Amino acid sequence: MRMGGLRRELGRHLILELYGCSPMLLDDEAFIKNVLAEAVKKANGNICGVFFHKFNPQGVTGVVLISESHVSIHTWPEYGYAAVDVFTCGERMDPWKACEHIVENFKPSNVNVLEIKRGLLTQSNRS
Amino acid sequence: MRMGGLRRELGRHLILELYGCSPMLLDDEAFIKNVLAEAVKKANGNICGVFFHKFNPQGVTGVVLISESHVSIHTWPEYGYAAVDVFTCGERMDPWKACEHIVENFKPSNVNVLEIKRGLLTQSNRS
Repeated sequence: MRMGGLRRELGRHLILELYGCSPMLLDDEAFIKNVLAEAVKKANGNICGVFFHKFNPQGVTGVVLISESHVSIHTWPEYGYAAVDVFTCGERMDPWKACEHIVENFKPSNVNVLEIKRGLLTQSNRS
Repeated sequence: MRMGGLRRELGRHLILELYGCSPMLLDDEAFIKNVLAEAVKKANGNICGVFFHKFNPQGVTGVVLISESHVSIHTWPEYGYAAVDVFTCGERMDPWKACEHIVENFKPSNVNVLEIKRGLLTQSNRS
């Protein structure tokens, strides 16, 4: 995108709302870690670190830090819901490939994805 | 918010765009870690883990995992820009208090904040 003084965005951020997932999968830390790591690989990202936390009695929260930003997840098994963010920068990584892998594996009955352009630099923003 | 079958959201997600920050601060990993950890404390959050990565030649990326979800940052010192996310759940933590602390410390010349409600559960979403 180039419009006058508005240059290309620095990052692309996908906000995924996954509803109607299996509560069992949403509480399975190993499964979730694996899905997110695979999603990063399929999207051509480089993993810097993988950090997860399992809640008692249920729920998993975690983030995969990547050279190109991050992928995060927070799950509510009791509602069949997961909030996922896929934030990437650069040309090499395609956040939508990660998104596809995540949706294919969590199999939500209802999914919403919003893409936000991050870091739109204009002359006034850079001052 | 209650509208018919639409119950209160599970999470609140603030998307911060910080422009015109000091490049020196945006490349200072210790400073950034400290600002984010303090922001979580001021907002009444509980830290589960703090994970950062410093890029060569410049830029810092990091996440503070909290019981209430996460706070993340990615900086581009060369553009004076930082992308910050403050994602919280529950009544106890106020994401706007974290946001205020972050803005006060990074002193951007231009800031945009977008609040997204995450996990709006309806009858159809839960099926």
